[in-house]
Amino acid sequence: MALSSPSQADTLTVRLGYEPRDRGLFVVALTHRSAEGPNNERLEFLGDSVLNLLLSERLYREFPVATEGDLSRLRARLVSEEPLAEIAQDMQLGELLLLGSGELKTGGFRRQSILADAFEALCGALYLDGGLEAVRDKVMPLFEAKIAALPEPATLKDAKTRLQEYLQANGRPLPLYIVKRTSGEPHAQIFLVSCSVPHLHVETEGEGPSRRRAEQVAAQAALNALGNPS
Amino acid sequence: MALSSPSQADTLTVRLGYEPRDRGLFVVALTHRSAEGPNNERLEFLGDSVLNLLLSERLYREFPVATEGDLSRLRARLVSEEPLAEIAQDMQLGELLLLGSGELKTGGFRRQSILADAFEALCGALYLDGGLEAVRDKVMPLFEAKIAALPEPATLKDAKTRLQEYLQANGRPLPLYIVKRTSGEPHAQIFLVSCSVPHLHVETEGEGPSRRRAEQVAAQAALNALGNPS
Repeated sequence: MALSSPSQADTLTVRLGYEPRDRGLFVVALTHRSAEGPNNERLEFLGDSVLNLLLSERLYREFPVATEGDLSRLRARLVSEEPLAEIAQDMQLGELLLLGSGELKTGGFRRQSILADAFEALCGALYLDGGLEAVRDKVMPLFEAKIAALPEPATLKDAKTRLQEYLQANGRPLPLYIVKRTSGEPHAQIFLVSCSVPHLHVETEGEGPSRRRAEQVAAQAALNALGNPS
Repeated sequence: MALSSPSQADTLTVRLGYEPRDRGLFVVALTHRSAEGPNNERLEFLGDSVLNLLLSERLYREFPVATEGDLSRLRARLVSEEPLAEIAQDMQLGELLLLGSGELKTGGFRRQSILADAFEALCGALYLDGGLEAVRDKVMPLFEAKIAALPEPATLKDAKTRLQEYLQANGRPLPLYIVKRTSGEPHAQIFLVSCSVPHLHVETEGEGPSRRRAEQVAAQAALNALGNPS
């Protein structure tokens, strides 16, 4: 693979200041599924886990008294498509992507999802080539500005907490969550949960892969029904 | 912390054949939130990411031609509560847990979720104490039997694929997915998607944190409505 692979991979590793052992991995990381040859989807799967761990560790150390719920919410702000695509744009990853002619014509190199996926794939390639430390060294600095801009954990609240606090502040009884139905295979269950707010005539439902997630969805729907009180 | 910490942590590290630098981390990993002192919830947050990465890497290497969707589905079978609790049981983690008196009385040390969470916290402690390699050495062997028992990737299919194949096999038109509503903050959107199966009078809805996830939930609901054809 190394002999015929495009020079974009070299540009990429030079930009990162990284000397690859297997530059073929970086060719694959830059290859969108619309192009020929092995594409970056499997590396994206791996790179997503790599980023998740490094950011989890960084937040664990950065916020020593944050709860695990706060840490999850902070991490979600860093690993979603938008921030990853922004970092990919900052490193001008788009111009290095190998895209099929269809995606090229329609400007696929500027699409947020394609950029975010390629960035994750790059993390996967770095991990396989140089281990966790290579990703920590080369990629984590790109997140520093976003980590510095994170809100204080105490200001982050999930939907159930916000609903409860709103009702308490208004002297109302607490909402009632009831599991209405579970479906799906044992390893992929889906929970349907209702949330009723007594006296306010609000009853909503939420579905999710766990009871807790379904309750959050139902609580958010109740907050929506109540006009999203702050 | 080291002087007053319970001896369960020593039993745990001896069982693992691991010499800790900071045994206090292992005390925390064993401490359920019902007990006094720092509990294992933050370590669980970190350990979840550690396990996710190591199992992603293992599956990436084990199944070199599996798609990223197959890899995700295989991983989900290893990191859900049930398999983690089984592994925790195999290593008799329950008897080492530090629980509050309420959980002790009600047999909390046998509860699947408490065991799975403590196992993840143990992975977090090992990672902080000895790096990724410590977790790879001491924990990954515990997954080998479960990895060997995984189905062939090609036999795994998600709900949308199963629904589509069922309809095609019966000469029916494909289902129609429509985003009915999005709600929530930009960084935590909730999608409500409908799935209609023409001519079969089935219309279901699904909610999720992405359009794709919501479609899967709606497709699973449609499969349920059709009597779960195989």
